[in-house]
Amino acid sequence: MLTESTLIDAGGSAAGAGALLSILRDGRPRTRAELAQLTGWARSTLSLRLDALMHQRLVAPTDDAIHSGGRPATTFTFNQSARLVLAADLGVTHARLAVTDLATIPLAERTAEMPIDRGPEPVLTWLIETFRQLLGECGRSLADVCGIGVGLPGPVEHGTGTPVNPPIMPGWDRFAVPQWLSARLGAPVLVDNDVNIMALGEYWAVRSQVQHMIFVKVGTGVGCGIISEGRIHRGAQGAAGDIGHIRVPSFEEVVCRCGNIGCLEAVAGGGALAARLREAGEDASVSRDVVDLVRAGNVRAVQAVRQAGREIGMVLAWVVNFFNPSLIVVGGDIAEAGEHLLAGVREVIYSRSLPLATQHLGILTSELGDRAGVTGAAVMVIEHVLAPDVVDQAVTA
Amino acid sequence: MLTESTLIDAGGSAAGAGALLSILRDGRPRTRAELAQLTGWARSTLSLRLDALMHQRLVAPTDDAIHSGGRPATTFTFNQSARLVLAADLGVTHARLAVTDLATIPLAERTAEMPIDRGPEPVLTWLIETFRQLLGECGRSLADVCGIGVGLPGPVEHGTGTPVNPPIMPGWDRFAVPQWLSARLGAPVLVDNDVNIMALGEYWAVRSQVQHMIFVKVGTGVGCGIISEGRIHRGAQGAAGDIGHIRVPSFEEVVCRCGNIGCLEAVAGGGALAARLREAGEDASVSRDVVDLVRAGNVRAVQAVRQAGREIGMVLAWVVNFFNPSLIVVGGDIAEAGEHLLAGVREVIYSRSLPLATQHLGILTSELGDRAGVTGAAVMVIEHVLAPDVVDQAVTA
Repeated sequence: MLTESTLIDAGGSAAGAGALLSILRDGRPRTRAELAQLTGWARSTLSLRLDALMHQRLVAPTDDAIHSGGRPATTFTFNQSARLVLAADLGVTHARLAVTDLATIPLAERTAEMPIDRGPEPVLTWLIETFRQLLGECGRSLADVCGIGVGLPGPVEHGTGTPVNPPIMPGWDRFAVPQWLSARLGAPVLVDNDVNIMALGEYWAVRSQVQHMIFVKVGTGVGCGIISEGRIHRGAQGAAGDIGHIRVPSFEEVVCRCGNIGCLEAVAGGGALAARLREAGEDASVSRDVVDLVRAGNVRAVQAVRQAGREIGMVLAWVVNFFNPSLIVVGGDIAEAGEHLLAGVREVIYSRSLPLATQHLGILTSELGDRAGVTGAAVMVIEHVLAPDVVDQAVTA
Repeated sequence: MLTESTLIDAGGSAAGAGALLSILRDGRPRTRAELAQLTGWARSTLSLRLDALMHQRLVAPTDDAIHSGGRPATTFTFNQSARLVLAADLGVTHARLAVTDLATIPLAERTAEMPIDRGPEPVLTWLIETFRQLLGECGRSLADVCGIGVGLPGPVEHGTGTPVNPPIMPGWDRFAVPQWLSARLGAPVLVDNDVNIMALGEYWAVRSQVQHMIFVKVGTGVGCGIISEGRIHRGAQGAAGDIGHIRVPSFEEVVCRCGNIGCLEAVAGGGALAARLREAGEDASVSRDVVDLVRAGNVRAVQAVRQAGREIGMVLAWVVNFFNPSLIVVGGDIAEAGEHLLAGVREVIYSRSLPLATQHLGILTSELGDRAGVTGAAVMVIEHVLAPDVVDQAVTA
């Protein structure tokens, strides 16, 4: 049975180092005196925990000591290059891979054509090979890697990191991605769907002041990631954010790949836009082609993207009334086609949502752009391995 | 500056009693040995904190001591009647007031006609008078009251508990309800909108196993309260859940009291149903009349309620795709008109939402019925006054 004295013993040991690291993770160098004041710990306790973090190389003394009258005091800082993260954003046709430090700064990065429909083993074998090359480029090895984060373009079961009935990923259903990769790379593997990691990346890197954020991805399909009080809202089955299959009015004749009719994605997704432009005689087969046409000033393409913005805006107007977010960020291929998509979205949200809910609502394009996913994949890993309880376990092991 | 030793001193005092109370709030009697094991505290620390709670009468030794071979051991239980809560659910035309114990059990209760449009001072003066009578009925006094919870039929600013631009509450805009009541009743006052407290009451009393719940109120108007991981989701401006003013397709000619057109509430709210039935020659002026007609077997009224269920179901189908709740609870006047409303809601949600999101989705009528609001008003107060830090402050003051 635990008694007060065993609790106090534990309190005096390195357990609790995780809380100290949480303070230092903002990157500011601090003296022992400052850290003692911030934590309320005795100097002896603080020393034990600092030592534990320095032993793990997660914290380092800094050169620029602080002079304040008396002799200079050493400062301590989070050592963000102590470990590496392997981050991958696997899309339907393209992939982006990066080696980052513990602050999501990329040390090496690669984009490549890699169709997800080649199946899990070919794609993941290529992924491992590419990560090895990237590690080589930065002169580091797998021994430095603390975790691997992967985003996939389909539904992922949160507890297991396994794709579940992904409609456009033949061969991936129930494939145990974390186990397969972890056995070959020797580090924990976290997997989530692409929209959730894009939302996480954008939130963590540039929007962390925001309480309630919706990240809408408009690529081949349409989906959104929901951040509520700093955390991803996944819902009961992890299916939250699937706005692509909300039925929009006046399109009852459009059949979606999900088998239903009038889905937002079948009306306003990049795939649908490309198909419609192709029927009208334009040279478009995938969503990137729509972007190229818009950039070339093709009027049909501009009109189509603007109208897609309106359809998406209608669904988002409902989302604004229901969820009352402070910020809507629009990302994905089609969002890169300039202001046309956003103009359509804004037009409808501001005319249809409640004034109270739109009063301070921001509607912006993604600041991270096509790097949102890979950043979020890194964040997912970092938030896991630097969580106070995980750090405590590591330093006392 | 805090040091380890001052922290240990604080740990040995009555501070921390709040955490002990959190364990005992489930109502199970426990011995000192059991409590020491559950908390990990030394016997001396436990005794100090138990004494502090007994001094406040929040915990009491129970008569039924446990015999386990040796001499009987005293058990301790949460004393839910130590303090009283005054709870009020003020609707547009009706009010329900209750005096409850610390487990939301009503000791005295009153329902009355009380139109909210009489303005704040007349309504709140009546409220105080009624609370005094109810206290008298249970032979208790204001000295026993630890807090007052009030639900209002309009938007309430969360931080201040003040109504903000309530459309059907003339004279209430920016009226400082908490200050006005607290000055006269001498206890803290918490105020929220009616739908949030209904959601809280239903969740706390009968659905606490559920992670993500939507409580839809279909009364004169339509609105919903959102519970996410056990807490009310309020959104950026506290406007979350306002689905009554989502525009539904095919009703572009219907003008809503908010000034917009085609709002769900103007199409499917109880007020709209009554107006439509009245135009068709039926005897209906408010939403309760619609319920009476349905109960009397009036076919027009049954059809109207069923169709309202379909319109509400269409909006909820979007909510299911976006939010992926585990449970939708339907309450309010119109929900009491039997299964007709729910049938319409289910019909549309099951045909329009994603299979993954509806696989385990429950769609049920409120178990608390017209007591959901007053229960939630009590819960709001209890969760506040029994929060560990508030209890710690009280016992060490």
